[in-house]
Amino acid sequence: MDKGRTEAFSDGVLAVAITLLVLDLHVEATEGSLAGQLRRNWPNFAAFLVSFFVIGVIWVNHHGLFTLVTEVDRVLLFENLALLMFVTTLPFTTSTLAKFLPGGGPDARWAVLLYGVSNIGMAVSFTAMLSRIVHHDLLASPVGPGVGRRAVRRFGLGTIAYPIATAAGLLWPPLTLIAIGALALYYTLEQTQLLPGAETS
Amino acid sequence: MDKGRTEAFSDGVLAVAITLLVLDLHVEATEGSLAGQLRRNWPNFAAFLVSFFVIGVIWVNHHGLFTLVTEVDRVLLFENLALLMFVTTLPFTTSTLAKFLPGGGPDARWAVLLYGVSNIGMAVSFTAMLSRIVHHDLLASPVGPGVGRRAVRRFGLGTIAYPIATAAGLLWPPLTLIAIGALALYYTLEQTQLLPGAETS
Amino acid sequence: MDKGRTEAFSDGVLAVAITLLVLDLHVEATEGSLAGQLRRNWPNFAAFLVSFFVIGVIWVNHHGLFTLVTEVDRVLLFENLALLMFVTTLPFTTSTLAKFLPGGGPDARWAVLLYGVSNIGMAVSFTAMLSRIVHHDLLASPVGPGVGRRAVRRFGLGTIAYPIATAAGLLWPPLTLIAIGALALYYTLEQTQLLPGAETS
Amino acid sequence: MDKGRTEAFSDGVLAVAITLLVLDLHVEATEGSLAGQLRRNWPNFAAFLVSFFVIGVIWVNHHGLFTLVTEVDRVLLFENLALLMFVTTLPFTTSTLAKFLPGGGPDARWAVLLYGVSNIGMAVSFTAMLSRIVHHDLLASPVGPGVGRRAVRRFGLGTIAYPIATAAGLLWPPLTLIAIGALALYYTLEQTQLLPGAETS
Repeated sequence: MDKGRTEAFSDGVLAVAITLLVLDLHVEATEGSLAGQLRRNWPNFAAFLVSFFVIGVIWVNHHGLFTLVTEVDRVLLFENLALLMFVTTLPFTTSTLAKFLPGGGPDARWAVLLYGVSNIGMAVSFTAMLSRIVHHDLLASPVGPGVGRRAVRRFGLGTIAYPIATAAGLLWPPLTLIAIGALALYYTLEQTQLLPGAETS
Repeated sequence: MDKGRTEAFSDGVLAVAITLLVLDLHVEATEGSLAGQLRRNWPNFAAFLVSFFVIGVIWVNHHGLFTLVTEVDRVLLFENLALLMFVTTLPFTTSTLAKFLPGGGPDARWAVLLYGVSNIGMAVSFTAMLSRIVHHDLLASPVGPGVGRRAVRRFGLGTIAYPIATAAGLLWPPLTLIAIGALALYYTLEQTQLLPGAETS
Repeated sequence: MDKGRTEAFSDGVLAVAITLLVLDLHVEATEGSLAGQLRRNWPNFAAFLVSFFVIGVIWVNHHGLFTLVTEVDRVLLFENLALLMFVTTLPFTTSTLAKFLPGGGPDARWAVLLYGVSNIGMAVSFTAMLSRIVHHDLLASPVGPGVGRRAVRRFGLGTIAYPIATAAGLLWPPLTLIAIGALALYYTLEQTQLLPGAETS
Repeated sequence: MDKGRTEAFSDGVLAVAITLLVLDLHVEATEGSLAGQLRRNWPNFAAFLVSFFVIGVIWVNHHGLFTLVTEVDRVLLFENLALLMFVTTLPFTTSTLAKFLPGGGPDARWAVLLYGVSNIGMAVSFTAMLSRIVHHDLLASPVGPGVGRRAVRRFGLGTIAYPIATAAGLLWPPLTLIAIGALALYYTLEQTQLLPGAETS
């Protein structure tokens, strides 16, 4: 199967999900001064920024991943759907985190857990996709088995890093946004390159 | 007419509809503990998962269907619009099912019926598209009439299976999600292939 | 300028607008029986169907219009933006029509007028685009001046028909949906063909 | 990296953001006469028009900018993400402006400031992208250093003009919409052309 429509559909879902994050920002003329509402709603703004960045980085890496292949198979399509499902939950888990973070206590921890599940799910799906591409001959230009295995292992670190970030958030909830933001920052580096240093720019 | 824009528009509608499903997930800081709300809202999460999967499978098969053709005609465009209309109703019928399932009674059955209509409508439109393609010379590589007829008949089973799933749901509403989920699972197999076994992967 | 991105952006806006129509369908577990709500909300369902059909037909004809050209110019881009703006207002004017139709009186007539403005705006923008294409040498295969003029005149009938449909709705509001639906039906015919009868299918 | 998916993702985000603006238009059957509500909500309609125009012009110029390049690099991708983030905030800042403009006082000025930040952010990101393209060899057809520098300087005027428009709005809030609208109008001219006068149409 040609990869074009998979890219188009993924771009669509990522574009809609990243833009729906804005629905969690709102203020009301009837709820006190605007400056006060903006101050009180800081978790919404912080969560918006981090989640926008998270989806943005997912898109950049999705873009990078698909430059490695020329064809997709059914398994990859469904792994991609799983990735998109976790992305789609992000407007919900982001909004939930923003709502329950200020209150602290078990509610804040449940919200951290939900937000963590979205992020862990994305990391696992993405690693599964990279692994499928490397191990099932979907690469546009084949590489040695060692190169592929190292790339999957390097990228797959996220599947360990995200649970750690989530656990840190369970100890101190506001840490979640910092830790997830830092992980997104790490993935802004060219992590989908099979050979680090083989930059395209 | 070229098929490119039809694919792009369909990808857009499917991407928006699948992402709008998330709007039905929400919790409020003012309505009790988060854990309690997540537990109470289980129908919303179950319905989100099933409907996400349903639209995802529709997209995968739509993708498969359009690899069979090189051109589209006006009738196919309008059959495709009908398919997209039923897809577009899914965020509404999913949310309605989630709201009325727990209460049981006639309300739950009406909600099952609505959800069934969305799914039956998709199955009928999709079968009509496959039939149009097979019987009106829109195939990229022509097949014998027997092959086409068998493909339409095999795929068209859904137009019988979805009403049965809906009827089962009328007897016991929670069954709806299980039955529709199972049907989506059936359609993850390569049902748009004209010759079963001629896998692309 | 290449026409590809104009098509992609237009497909995006049309896909989002057509899918947002579903947000106007909703029922609540706390507002009486579901069957009763579905009955009471008939204007929402009728308006959803008509507006879905209207945007669908706009998309089919937009598709047809852009097969006539190979290039777009800045004026065409801005005429296209005007078309998309009127399309974008449709979820609002559709929802307003559905809310105020049952009450009748001046409110229903104002709602008819708003809905009419969306539709008249689309017809005028679309005709302006066709006219720009015909009269400014943007056609992929040039036609005689008489052919172009006739095509614009034939298509431009909508700029008269939509105000008439709106005026009819002012006399009897429910007529609006019937009249606009009938006009959409008229535009399902191949109205963007320069030479009627030169079918592509 | 190929520029195609960057264009597709940007088109998606711009299409969703421009269409979400409509969610800020709404009236209720229970809140007095429709004519009265339409009159009272004039700031919503004015803000919708201006912001639709702003995003539309961003899209037209984004389109123009990407015709200058054949490849994108990682820095450009992230500058583009920053641009899209400011675009995405526009449905929120537009709605906030419409809500707080009529009340005047410090609330209206805070709303003007928020709306200004969205617009200044877009102007700065866009100028950074143009500068990156000109100064890092991403141009499809190279130009002399003087030409590139002049183009960046001419376009970059917006990074001064938007803060001035915002400051004017702080003095008299309704001026914001007029000033931002006028700037958008200025950018409808072919500002992304490296050599003014080298029109494509």
